[in-house]
Amino acid sequence: MKVAIIMGSDSDYEVVKKTEEILKDFGVEVQVRVMSAHRTPDRAMEFAKNAETNGYEVIIGAAGKAAHLPGVLAALTLLPVIGIPIKSSTMDGLDSLLSIVQMPKGIPVATVAINGAENAGLLAIQILSTKYVDLREKLKAFREKQEKEVIEKDEMFLNR
Amino acid sequence: MKVAIIMGSDSDYEVVKKTEEILKDFGVEVQVRVMSAHRTPDRAMEFAKNAETNGYEVIIGAAGKAAHLPGVLAALTLLPVIGIPIKSSTMDGLDSLLSIVQMPKGIPVATVAINGAENAGLLAIQILSTKYVDLREKLKAFREKQEKEVIEKDEMFLNR
Amino acid sequence: MKVAIIMGSDSDYEVVKKTEEILKDFGVEVQVRVMSAHRTPDRAMEFAKNAETNGYEVIIGAAGKAAHLPGVLAALTLLPVIGIPIKSSTMDGLDSLLSIVQMPKGIPVATVAINGAENAGLLAIQILSTKYVDLREKLKAFREKQEKEVIEKDEMFLNR
Amino acid sequence: MKVAIIMGSDSDYEVVKKTEEILKDFGVEVQVRVMSAHRTPDRAMEFAKNAETNGYEVIIGAAGKAAHLPGVLAALTLLPVIGIPIKSSTMDGLDSLLSIVQMPKGIPVATVAINGAENAGLLAIQILSTKYVDLREKLKAFREKQEKEVIEKDEMFLNR
Amino acid sequence: MKVAIIMGSDSDYEVVKKTEEILKDFGVEVQVRVMSAHRTPDRAMEFAKNAETNGYEVIIGAAGKAAHLPGVLAALTLLPVIGIPIKSSTMDGLDSLLSIVQMPKGIPVATVAINGAENAGLLAIQILSTKYVDLREKLKAFREKQEKEVIEKDEMFLNR
Amino acid sequence: MKVAIIMGSDSDYEVVKKTEEILKDFGVEVQVRVMSAHRTPDRAMEFAKNAETNGYEVIIGAAGKAAHLPGVLAALTLLPVIGIPIKSSTMDGLDSLLSIVQMPKGIPVATVAINGAENAGLLAIQILSTKYVDLREKLKAFREKQEKEVIEKDEMFLNR
Amino acid sequence: MKVAIIMGSDSDYEVVKKTEEILKDFGVEVQVRVMSAHRTPDRAMEFAKNAETNGYEVIIGAAGKAAHLPGVLAALTLLPVIGIPIKSSTMDGLDSLLSIVQMPKGIPVATVAINGAENAGLLAIQILSTKYVDLREKLKAFREKQEKEVIEKDEMFLNR
Amino acid sequence: MKVAIIMGSDSDYEVVKKTEEILKDFGVEVQVRVMSAHRTPDRAMEFAKNAETNGYEVIIGAAGKAAHLPGVLAALTLLPVIGIPIKSSTMDGLDSLLSIVQMPKGIPVATVAINGAENAGLLAIQILSTKYVDLREKLKAFREKQEKEVIEKDEMFLNR
Repeated sequence: MKVAIIMGSDSDYEVVKKTEEILKDFGVEVQVRVMSAHRTPDRAMEFAKNAETNGYEVIIGAAGKAAHLPGVLAALTLLPVIGIPIKSSTMDGLDSLLSIVQMPKGIPVATVAINGAENAGLLAIQILSTKYVDLREKLKAFREKQEKEVIEKDEMFLNR
Repeated sequence: MKVAIIMGSDSDYEVVKKTEEILKDFGVEVQVRVMSAHRTPDRAMEFAKNAETNGYEVIIGAAGKAAHLPGVLAALTLLPVIGIPIKSSTMDGLDSLLSIVQMPKGIPVATVAINGAENAGLLAIQILSTKYVDLREKLKAFREKQEKEVIEKDEMFLNR
Repeated sequence: MKVAIIMGSDSDYEVVKKTEEILKDFGVEVQVRVMSAHRTPDRAMEFAKNAETNGYEVIIGAAGKAAHLPGVLAALTLLPVIGIPIKSSTMDGLDSLLSIVQMPKGIPVATVAINGAENAGLLAIQILSTKYVDLREKLKAFREKQEKEVIEKDEMFLNR
Repeated sequence: MKVAIIMGSDSDYEVVKKTEEILKDFGVEVQVRVMSAHRTPDRAMEFAKNAETNGYEVIIGAAGKAAHLPGVLAALTLLPVIGIPIKSSTMDGLDSLLSIVQMPKGIPVATVAINGAENAGLLAIQILSTKYVDLREKLKAFREKQEKEVIEKDEMFLNR
Repeated sequence: MKVAIIMGSDSDYEVVKKTEEILKDFGVEVQVRVMSAHRTPDRAMEFAKNAETNGYEVIIGAAGKAAHLPGVLAALTLLPVIGIPIKSSTMDGLDSLLSIVQMPKGIPVATVAINGAENAGLLAIQILSTKYVDLREKLKAFREKQEKEVIEKDEMFLNR
Repeated sequence: MKVAIIMGSDSDYEVVKKTEEILKDFGVEVQVRVMSAHRTPDRAMEFAKNAETNGYEVIIGAAGKAAHLPGVLAALTLLPVIGIPIKSSTMDGLDSLLSIVQMPKGIPVATVAINGAENAGLLAIQILSTKYVDLREKLKAFREKQEKEVIEKDEMFLNR
Repeated sequence: MKVAIIMGSDSDYEVVKKTEEILKDFGVEVQVRVMSAHRTPDRAMEFAKNAETNGYEVIIGAAGKAAHLPGVLAALTLLPVIGIPIKSSTMDGLDSLLSIVQMPKGIPVATVAINGAENAGLLAIQILSTKYVDLREKLKAFREKQEKEVIEKDEMFLNR
Repeated sequence: MKVAIIMGSDSDYEVVKKTEEILKDFGVEVQVRVMSAHRTPDRAMEFAKNAETNGYEVIIGAAGKAAHLPGVLAALTLLPVIGIPIKSSTMDGLDSLLSIVQMPKGIPVATVAINGAENAGLLAIQILSTKYVDLREKLKAFREKQEKEVIEKDEMFLNR
């Protein structure tokens, strides 16, 4: 089980490290990379073309502004590609979101919320668990823990 | 290989039938259903809870306006859930898009473009192909056909 | 007279406590709870289904981003449900607002302004006062006090 | 049980008649009026001030563009006021929605979706049912019928 | 020459004081008031109805969120009304702008930019100068001074 | 009493003719012109510089898309300038509105609603009536007629 | 003088043909092509890499929705790239505009208006005229003709 | 090789100095100026009219809010004009962007991202390099350096 996280800029790592953490917590091998659809296009495309051969099963692309990276990666691989729109200093993330989610017919990008780093990791796990059954068990435990945390907070309010 | 397409309203079928077609073209078993997170909440939730046991591997939810359906289904299953924001008569699809893609931490929905029915089907195929290797071969052929169609149009312009 | 305030996350309490305060000031019994449409769906739905039997007369749901909570609660109770869109770190509250107010035909949510916590409380009081006549008297006094405060400020400017 | 529906313009009736129909179906007395916060301000304000004395229990205000009507009515009555943002020829209803829902602290308007006429009626019924218990029974029946209609459509797809 | 500046809340004064300053600099008598279309509707309407008799020639209304104040004042006076949309804590001023500028047919509000306090004052002066010719002379001097300030900054860059 | 209506394109006349009509109904002399801030900049600027000398007292500028015309006219005259944002084939008028209303400090444009042609005329009349008292009488009659029309429609609904 | 117009889809030709016409009118050699950043990525990239060698001096990219084409071309050539955001069936062109104009630091795309096909051609001519002086003469003539057309319409209104 | 950078306000220099730096790094002569389309219209127009004669080959205009400056300059010169939308205190730069990019047919402005100062400089260099071949060599080196920086960061992540 190996997932690649490709960031358009190393400054995206502050957001993206939560994706990495969640994948590692689930025992998934992760490789974080910095590649730009615009500044290192050849390198990004080369990566996408070889990703399947190199053993990756899901690619996560994170980028801001006119965020072409996830779509460009998706165009060059048959692997499922998840897109994380990164909020930048203008437009409150709307530019990143629309640049990633509004992919034209033929090449989808599975888009999560603006800065939705954890959910990108969880979605990758759900995709992998189609094949790796034990991941689904771990996801079940994760959900139960998550549910329990909300219930504990709820009980704090109940018992005030 | 079995995928469920859940529409919030039967009027969404005009868009969603393209998802169904593409999945059938790839030989994936599809079940189209009409369930509303608001008008038939119990039925929708029951479906989501049993979807894995009933042999589904991916769920696609399509809904418009305050489109809660994909998120509500995702909350009650461990299967990957794909969301199609349906454009309704006001707000040009922005309400549907934000209601689906902006899922809070913990429960992701893999969102495609507004009315992006074909891509929802293709994304489901990419997810399934993690496990079913022959789907990836079909996807490769699909991509090549798609590429060829664009090239033919390009050559028409080249040869004017 | 009993009102439930359900928050999607305990971090919403900073906003929502003003709803609680205003209801208490009017002598309405309030129960603040933390339940998530996505992380504790069963618990939230169970609550909504039993709210009427448990003596609640109005439910207030507060949530951010793809804010499904008020709509999901509304789907499972006949009680009037008020929605407070919570502003989160992206999209300036627009996502929360549209996710709550744009409810499809059949299940309404009475939506107030983004972070409009006081008004959610006042609206609950107006709804309750349909039945509890003395609340209307208190509301009249509240309005008069509110009016007086503005007039005092106006007179400060008049007498500069 | 008496509800007033105040439209800012008679052209809004095409939308608003669905509110009237649903209220009549529930046996609620309805009075539809045309009053403008801007073109007949005195008349609108007079109406709001006397609405409670005249036996109304809920007011529904429908208006488009810079839609001040619901807020202005709400300022002059203690009754709960429901706002319907009407979509006009520009801005796709966003102007109407924000003008109604973003009410400042102190005077709430219970806002429904853009052109959400049916839901405005249903919300009025939910508010009235706080006091009139038999309305809740009718609402339950309405919900069951609505649920059944969705289920029938679902079964059509199941049995294709 | 007398102008009224009506703020929906005293917290708007931080913005609005620039309107006051500019009017005073031009020798126009100014009265700043706090009146709310929602919290002190009668007082606001009374003011508008009597403004002309009380010697005012232009009214400036400043308000945020669902900013009804300028439109409500305009409905009750024949005087020209200028609206200043105040930016509040959500929606970046878009709600205030649309609530003020999108006035329906029949009652205009002369809208300036979000937080455009200086320009509201200058517009009032331009309106008054239709009648008071000497104001136009002062405006000409103001423009020349303003032009000179820009030119000085330009020359700083020219001479770096 | 003379008002100039400057359109950025003759295709705007469909909207702008309502401005012309209303001004003529009030007995104001109107001159409609086609001038573009971009295609005939010199002519537009020449017009603005001489408008006061040529007897104009108010200028109305109507333009769509990146609608610079009203602002450019305002920069070159001391007369009050009213801006009408024209809705074009994209962006639903938002581009025109923001290009006109968001004028920077120093040069205001009195902006009316998107396609708000009638209100532009009425605002011009209100501005002129600062000086020409009889216009105010006519405006009063106009308002009364307008009010009566709404009341007649209201009575139609009252007497159904 | 040779310019390439690359469309993401042949359906964009309805808009883009105006770019082609204007370039031909100026005597510039034009090649219209259909290439997709997503469906024919290799072909598009190959084109961009060789464009300079193949004698192109400006590239114009036109695409809708998540419009990556102009940015991807720009990443692989040193030639100036002009982007035309194409309005598609949802989001009124805002998605295309933001996907093209919001390019991150390092790789610019010279963006024109949504569906701004003529201006893309004119901008290409302005760029080329940096080198080809006679184009500037033609542009001057074009501007004069354009100015004359507006003046003729203006005179029609003057002489009514 | 001479480029003019015209700012609408000296406060824009904080953004615009990056444009200046990049142009100087490429050995292009730069003149930074402060001129306002509204506060110094004559000076701005005079500049634009004479820019070509004065040896400028590209003009860059930077402005915020209702940002007319780039369009007004473009109307009065045949030189290519690049527009930088400056983010101001409201509307997150959307007003500036639309005011610059949505230029009507006939006069284009080559628009870059909101606050996209570096890219404005790079675009000017690309335009100039149509004529000045050695600039293209420098641009190639710049791109290689830029690529190398991303690759170095990528390798840091590879070698963690």
